Amino acid sequence: MTAEQVARSAREASNVLQTVTSAQKSAVLKRIKQVLEERRESIVEANRADKEAAQKEVEAGRLSASLFKRLDIEGAGGEKYATLLQGVDDVDSIPDPIGQVTMARRLDNNLDLYRVVCPVGVCLVIFEARPEVVVNIACLAIKSGNAAILKGGKEANRTNQALADAIQYAIATAPAPPGTQTAFPERAVQVVSTRDEINSLLDMDRYVDLVIPRGSNSLVRHIQNNTRIPVLGHADGICSTYLDASADVGKAVHTVVDAKTNYPAACNATETLLVHAAVVDTVFVPVAKALLAAGVRIHADERSLKAIEGAGAARESPELVFQATDSDFGHEYTDLDIAVRVVDSLDAAIDHINAHGSKHTDAIITEDRASAEWFMRRVDAAGVYWNASTRFADGFRYGFGAEIGVSTNKTHARGPAGLEGLTIYKYRLFGDGQGAGDFGVGPGKHSFLHEDIPLESVRGRFVL
Amino acid sequence: MTAEQVARSAREASNVLQTVTSAQKSAVLKRIKQVLEERRESIVEANRADKEAAQKEVEAGRLSASLFKRLDIEGAGGEKYATLLQGVDDVDSIPDPIGQVTMARRLDNNLDLYRVVCPVGVCLVIFEARPEVVVNIACLAIKSGNAAILKGGKEANRTNQALADAIQYAIATAPAPPGTQTAFPERAVQVVSTRDEINSLLDMDRYVDLVIPRGSNSLVRHIQNNTRIPVLGHADGICSTYLDASADVGKAVHTVVDAKTNYPAACNATETLLVHAAVVDTVFVPVAKALLAAGVRIHADERSLKAIEGAGAARESPELVFQATDSDFGHEYTDLDIAVRVVDSLDAAIDHINAHGSKHTDAIITEDRASAEWFMRRVDAAGVYWNASTRFADGFRYGFGAEIGVSTNKTHARGPAGLEGLTIYKYRLFGDGQGAGDFGVGPGKHSFLHEDIPLESVRGRFVL
Repeated sequence: MTAEQVARSAREASNVLQTVTSAQKSAVLKRIKQVLEERRESIVEANRADKEAAQKEVEAGRLSASLFKRLDIEGAGGEKYATLLQGVDDVDSIPDPIGQVTMARRLDNNLDLYRVVCPVGVCLVIFEARPEVVVNIACLAIKSGNAAILKGGKEANRTNQALADAIQYAIATAPAPPGTQTAFPERAVQVVSTRDEINSLLDMDRYVDLVIPRGSNSLVRHIQNNTRIPVLGHADGICSTYLDASADVGKAVHTVVDAKTNYPAACNATETLLVHAAVVDTVFVPVAKALLAAGVRIHADERSLKAIEGAGAARESPELVFQATDSDFGHEYTDLDIAVRVVDSLDAAIDHINAHGSKHTDAIITEDRASAEWFMRRVDAAGVYWNASTRFADGFRYGFGAEIGVSTNKTHARGPAGLEGLTIYKYRLFGDGQGAGDFGVGPGKHSFLHEDIPLESVRGRFVL
Repeated sequence: MTAEQVARSAREASNVLQTVTSAQKSAVLKRIKQVLEERRESIVEANRADKEAAQKEVEAGRLSASLFKRLDIEGAGGEKYATLLQGVDDVDSIPDPIGQVTMARRLDNNLDLYRVVCPVGVCLVIFEARPEVVVNIACLAIKSGNAAILKGGKEANRTNQALADAIQYAIATAPAPPGTQTAFPERAVQVVSTRDEINSLLDMDRYVDLVIPRGSNSLVRHIQNNTRIPVLGHADGICSTYLDASADVGKAVHTVVDAKTNYPAACNATETLLVHAAVVDTVFVPVAKALLAAGVRIHADERSLKAIEGAGAARESPELVFQATDSDFGHEYTDLDIAVRVVDSLDAAIDHINAHGSKHTDAIITEDRASAEWFMRRVDAAGVYWNASTRFADGFRYGFGAEIGVSTNKTHARGPAGLEGLTIYKYRLFGDGQGAGDFGVGPGKHSFLHEDIPLESVRGRFVL
């Protein structure tokens, strides 16, 4: 199939998906789990072939070891495959967002307006390496009634295709629950495998409604720069933690070490540490010692460097301390590195973050509620935290049951996006033959009532 | 100022706007109304100069009479200026959306997550002719805490600048209510006047968060094609009304005549009439007669043309009946023209709309609830109506108190967008020094609680 045919089939599938029921979606998800269990051997086989080919690329220096590691779908004791299967159950158990009424208003007698949640439509998801994303995204798309076109890393082509085949087979063979009006469309989930296809699809805004890139900065930026379709995601994750004048030293040490070392490659790891001048010696120095003890390289500005040296904090590991340059701020290390700058006020910290951050997640460590509130209001980011590690910015930690990505957009979905990020709404108006000209001033004309209809009374009204 | 300076000042203003209070915003709106009253004469003067220059353009055939008419800000009896002033009051009286909590969840003891509504940031609004839009959009931006950069039609440059000056003066001289922490930023509202500035601004996604074009198809399409910033709006308004097999003839006549003739230039006017084959003679013919009587030109496909001719419906006005060509479908006439196609089933009507419509607003006329529900689920449009004119698609008719535009996007805001379209949210996390590594499996590790916090209990929690 050409990219255009894939896109058109996805659109057709999306049209049909508007009328599948929650029961149908659940039946398909259960069947997907079954088929993934049944076909485990052949999927693992395909994965082995991918890994063998990739191994040669690693040996030739064309593929990184970390990328290679993420290619594996089984895990040493099969735990990765078990997690993949559990993920299908998890998505199945999330409440169905589709059909919920989020606004109801009586415009006039016999003229009722409802705002009803519906799927976005067709989503193009582009990711690297980890083939389990195929299953994860397919399940989220199915649950939210979206058609998905998936493109994984080429290293995982065989695995991706085997997983997609399993999913399409599951869709085709899922039982139809009572009340089914439309067959579940097989093309709800499709896989493409070449970069050319992606470039074509990024042009097809008539068919594709949303692009979700999950991968490196450069992948996301390339996509953002090459499509008019809305992109949900983030390129940089430049998160800051600010140690305020009244920071508690214990909380500072614990949250900063966690934010930097818990998973340094994650987008929600702290890259920049801002320190109020008043607590450089009292709070920052203990934090610096703890970071150095954890093997973190500190890129310190003049004032913080002086404090580290003055306290002899780097005595045991001088190789971990560097003089920061301007380029250290606004840089995502994705490694055990942190940039440190001393600021003279809370507002200077806020201004630094708004100028150099990536609007992802920023934290203040302080015992002063007024400072915390001011920081959380003034910092323009998806997540603004008080006395907590930036690492909490995650759909699962937020309790969403799923995460389609973390968005630094200022529209649609912001921050960790759960299933809601794959939904929008439509307005359904129930009339009795009215025209707009019936309303206005004059004899026989109506006036709008605009009475809110209690949402409790319409709960379940549009649940399919 | 260069376009970049304008954009940067807007971003700085936006940062400050995060902490202005509802009382401040209200004080500024009241002051704007006052200043617009005080400066009425000089504003009308500027408008007169614009009109005189435009009159010459009309005479030279370079400006249309309808555009010229929309330039006027006063109205023959001053009613347009009165409406403009009333509009300021109306925006002031809308409840403040900022600071509302839309989700609250206890992740663990002393670790509470709140999703709080906040302004989008910096909005670039591009419109044609009607200078009162300056006031309207400025007020909506102020109410929602956004910084606005406005660009109007060049014919109205003097008026636009006089209005913007009045607004900036009002901001600078508005009284500061008790509790004010930050002065209201004067550059919250700025005006630019050249196309070059717009082209530069459309490139500045670091400063501008949202573009709202209000004007002709070609303006909107030009902007959509020339920016990576999210665009809220619609190019085409190709709305359809479908007369189902069980349509009531009275409702059909009333809604279709209204949808076509109430305001043919509007984006929510019906452009296409679809007719089930079973009711061509019984329902469509009376509708056609009523349309012809109202002076509507009918572009009929073969079957509907035959019905019109067979019934002698066009006897009095044969000049109003045309044979439709393919290009009539999916075309926005913005005039007293309608395309008619006969279809053999409800699904054929739905398929036609999903293929040719612009996802704006589509209606079904039927007495059959099952058909209506099916139509409203399957048609992929911002508005799906049952027995009502497509002309109801409008923020004021929906009771939003304001409209920033009608969006045919599938993300962020869909359909008539009120103040909500200018808002997004951020996550505020209130911790006690926790790190993500404190959670998990093992001795001393915590599990997430993920308990919903009742929204009633946090109402007003973040209202400034």
